[in-house]
Amino acid sequence: MNQIYSSIPTAQLIVELCVLNGIEHVVISPGSRNAPLTITLANHPKINAYSIVDERCAGFFALGMTQRFNAPVAVVCTSGSALLNYYPAVSEAFYSNLPLVVISADRPPHLIDVGDGQTIRQPNVFKNHILYSANLKSDFHNSGDQSILDFNTKETHKALQTAIWNQGPVHINAPFDEPLYNKTDQLDFTIPKLASLKPNSAKIDVSDFINSWNTSSKKLVLVGVNLDEKIDESFLELFSEDPSVIVMTEITSNISDRNFFTNIDSILAPIESEANTEKLFEALQPDMLITFGGLIVSKKIKKFLRQFQPKKHFHIDPREANDTFFCLTQHFETSVNSFFEKSNSSLTKIESSYFESWNAIRLKTLLYRKHYKNEIGFTDFAFYYSLFEHLPQDETVHFANSSSIRYANLFDSRREIKAFANRGTSGIDGSTSTAIGYAVASQEPTTLVTGDLSFFYDSNALWNNYIPKNFKIILLNNSGGGIFRILPGNKDEDYFANYFETTHNLNAKQLCEMYQLQYTVAHDLVDVDRELPLFFKRNRSPQLIEIFTPRLENDKVLLGYFDYLRKHIDFQSVLNFKTTESTSN
Amino acid sequence: MNQIYSSIPTAQLIVELCVLNGIEHVVISPGSRNAPLTITLANHPKINAYSIVDERCAGFFALGMTQRFNAPVAVVCTSGSALLNYYPAVSEAFYSNLPLVVISADRPPHLIDVGDGQTIRQPNVFKNHILYSANLKSDFHNSGDQSILDFNTKETHKALQTAIWNQGPVHINAPFDEPLYNKTDQLDFTIPKLASLKPNSAKIDVSDFINSWNTSSKKLVLVGVNLDEKIDESFLELFSEDPSVIVMTEITSNISDRNFFTNIDSILAPIESEANTEKLFEALQPDMLITFGGLIVSKKIKKFLRQFQPKKHFHIDPREANDTFFCLTQHFETSVNSFFEKSNSSLTKIESSYFESWNAIRLKTLLYRKHYKNEIGFTDFAFYYSLFEHLPQDETVHFANSSSIRYANLFDSRREIKAFANRGTSGIDGSTSTAIGYAVASQEPTTLVTGDLSFFYDSNALWNNYIPKNFKIILLNNSGGGIFRILPGNKDEDYFANYFETTHNLNAKQLCEMYQLQYTVAHDLVDVDRELPLFFKRNRSPQLIEIFTPRLENDKVLLGYFDYLRKHIDFQSVLNFKTTESTSN
Repeated sequence: MNQIYSSIPTAQLIVELCVLNGIEHVVISPGSRNAPLTITLANHPKINAYSIVDERCAGFFALGMTQRFNAPVAVVCTSGSALLNYYPAVSEAFYSNLPLVVISADRPPHLIDVGDGQTIRQPNVFKNHILYSANLKSDFHNSGDQSILDFNTKETHKALQTAIWNQGPVHINAPFDEPLYNKTDQLDFTIPKLASLKPNSAKIDVSDFINSWNTSSKKLVLVGVNLDEKIDESFLELFSEDPSVIVMTEITSNISDRNFFTNIDSILAPIESEANTEKLFEALQPDMLITFGGLIVSKKIKKFLRQFQPKKHFHIDPREANDTFFCLTQHFETSVNSFFEKSNSSLTKIESSYFESWNAIRLKTLLYRKHYKNEIGFTDFAFYYSLFEHLPQDETVHFANSSSIRYANLFDSRREIKAFANRGTSGIDGSTSTAIGYAVASQEPTTLVTGDLSFFYDSNALWNNYIPKNFKIILLNNSGGGIFRILPGNKDEDYFANYFETTHNLNAKQLCEMYQLQYTVAHDLVDVDRELPLFFKRNRSPQLIEIFTPRLENDKVLLGYFDYLRKHIDFQSVLNFKTTESTSN
Repeated sequence: MNQIYSSIPTAQLIVELCVLNGIEHVVISPGSRNAPLTITLANHPKINAYSIVDERCAGFFALGMTQRFNAPVAVVCTSGSALLNYYPAVSEAFYSNLPLVVISADRPPHLIDVGDGQTIRQPNVFKNHILYSANLKSDFHNSGDQSILDFNTKETHKALQTAIWNQGPVHINAPFDEPLYNKTDQLDFTIPKLASLKPNSAKIDVSDFINSWNTSSKKLVLVGVNLDEKIDESFLELFSEDPSVIVMTEITSNISDRNFFTNIDSILAPIESEANTEKLFEALQPDMLITFGGLIVSKKIKKFLRQFQPKKHFHIDPREANDTFFCLTQHFETSVNSFFEKSNSSLTKIESSYFESWNAIRLKTLLYRKHYKNEIGFTDFAFYYSLFEHLPQDETVHFANSSSIRYANLFDSRREIKAFANRGTSGIDGSTSTAIGYAVASQEPTTLVTGDLSFFYDSNALWNNYIPKNFKIILLNNSGGGIFRILPGNKDEDYFANYFETTHNLNAKQLCEMYQLQYTVAHDLVDVDRELPLFFKRNRSPQLIEIFTPRLENDKVLLGYFDYLRKHIDFQSVLNFKTTESTSN
């Protein structure tokens, strides 16, 4: 046998259980305490191991891989503060339901809190944001003690099964004692037969849902982050062709249809400053809300639905339901496809002007968005408009937080683009690493669209030997956190630029030289329209195009957009539709 | 009045209590949820506010400031994963007893876990490594409710007092509701008189200590990290002039005397491979061990004293005692100076050859270190030798983990140099940020000595607008984690360079251009001896000198050093001394 194992049985069993549970990709950060795991993983024929030094980046890199594989990916680190650097990725995995498996080496308990180096209190350290913590026991002085190996086996298996079936992060903490570097050519034990811990399917009673559907003339379907489930076309048509149904999607919903409402805020923002705000929102208020997918980006839709709540809110998700609008009626613990397979045949269409009246407004927002683009100078808004014209079919696009994903939601999501964003915690801390992890996993053309703060925050993401040649970064550099100029701060006061916007004069040129990314710049729309097609065509090496936009113009143009729509579109026309079809339900 | 406060009372009270508790420096990271704090802090006449985007760097930057001020420094961030990026610095503060005050903005509880952006479970999130967590209540719907303000006042004060008196990290979590940007020109309430929570001094019984001191002929004083207490010279002389006392220090002990043993490993390492290992260690084994200061770097001294335990071990520290050698007899909860003020007059000298016999060896290690330096090529070892010849008087030097501080301990610590290292968790994650924070706080000449992995790990440290012109970085670039080549791994195997050493071809040139540090390189000893004096003389702008050393030579030269000492020094001579003075105690 040419397989090389660590001589420490617990290291052997962790790796073997990972393989048995379908883990094929492991991201290792350097260390000595984790040598038993590193040795075993690096030599295992069924494991693809990646080496990334900065654990914060390693965590998000692995997270990006889970987005692609929809299967657990492990990160492995040494003892001490190394582990804590995973926490941002762990919390993102927790709220985005991604199976990130954290495996940390530790010292045996008697060496904790006695002054040894790289030693902290690792058991349960992610307690607030973890599905399961397996705190293994040291097998050093007890390698003959089968009960310890049995315990470690059971706990490791339980953690891995939890990651798989409950889709979220788990932590396996493994104390190892010296010597750490000894090896053996065969496993020291046999892994017992281990049962699947797949939870039983919940029983689902769809009667209330069917009754509501068949009697509500104003139904809103709202779709959050949807990474993995491809919704059956026939169900999308069911929504699309029913006049009592409005489907609102975000770009991260990854579904599209000519009748779906994509740029939600283009309708909600103008209404907020209309004369008849209250009446217009009442006209838009659904009787019944159906949600699926993960988190929603738009703050405006949350605000609207919290204030103008539907009578019934049904959420479909195999695992969990956020009561985002404080009126959740029922949570169906199943996939969207299986839910509609079950209920589909009982659903009937309802006569209603709900879709028609609002669709007229929607179509006008698309028209006036185009007009507006022709009236403005080169700004973030203008760039995003162009970007969506240039994006190639079948590109996977990762959007960083938070301006990037918010701008993207103002433009059409198209069936051909797959869109991702870390909306679990909506942090700016790991967008680049996540996108690179996804790109490595898929090897398909992948582009990250990011702002400058998010990009520089995660600059160590580029310290990565695996970046595919077809990976691309579009960096929108507006010299600071442009989002803060859009929020209601006092942007003209002295302290604003320092502590909110955090302005800077950095650019990405030197980082691109350092990490060997091809570098291009664009300063205006002519540059963009010339360079973007070339940028998307080249695949010889990873690339970055840096788009410089004017910091002091972007916020005016964005806020001006909503104002422009309000001025040019007759929102009041909606109120002329007969709305008496509203059910008495 | 021209002070501008947030209109949210809890934000006001947090800032006012920080000021009342002596906090003068606050590091703010950008965000919207923390706007009430940012507005109040940025405008407060008694607060120096710093703006740093990456919270991981901000945490360590503030930590470096606490090292200098020996007083609490606060970091302030927005809600969500931002907070988690402080965790590496929090754990370092926890194990290094530094008063880092983390203040996080949060959403009110009803908006947690319902799908809002940048929202995680913040209360008690640092539970394993925090002295106190103040989980404040939202005052939004209750601004007239004095009981909530009273609660928040009491909890905030308790957290701040804990940081001060117990010297460690605390966390204040403050939920704010919108609107977040409103301001007022005066405080909405009066802060009540608040009592100091200074703990009562512990009663100290020194009788056993005095008895042991006066009867033990082999006393070892071992000093760990010592940042702030300047030990009275008379006590150092007491140790220095007693023939039954050996004082072992590390460079981070920040005390020195011609008779103190500085490079501990130069004695311990050769003994480990001597013929009479056991007997030699028995001759070195103390009857009585006195320790003070924080954590110890040398693994060899820990290993030695765990195996050859003293009969008595006394630790002097106002706060805590690690039982590092598993034989702690008594912990004196007081400062070193006040302890010896109390016991000094009762201590007598004992006749002994303990110091004399081992001092002969010590002096030879210093001589042969010099000889060895002349026999080796340009390597890490040779560079550190030169560095200690070139370091200017009164320079403050921060050593990164882990090679840097370990090499530094092989050379003399000198009274004129102040030395620091993050030895609480011994992580590589924040050394540069810490050094910059210290330099900003002191404004005195400060140099960071770092290896390449640690430097690139914390590259965002340079994204900092406050770096003083006299701040310097010495980057020892040996193309990877050289420490791993010294540890007992199989350094010739394929996977070793990838997953342990994590080799790279990076250099710091582009980062220096990006962040405007003057950049110099050195490839050999001639370069070093020419450039280092110039480097230390220049103070026009922050600088970095990059020293390239041969990756495959460094480990051989270091391990060869110990072997060279063993070959050239007659360690056995120690055994010829009469050791019968050993007490029967």
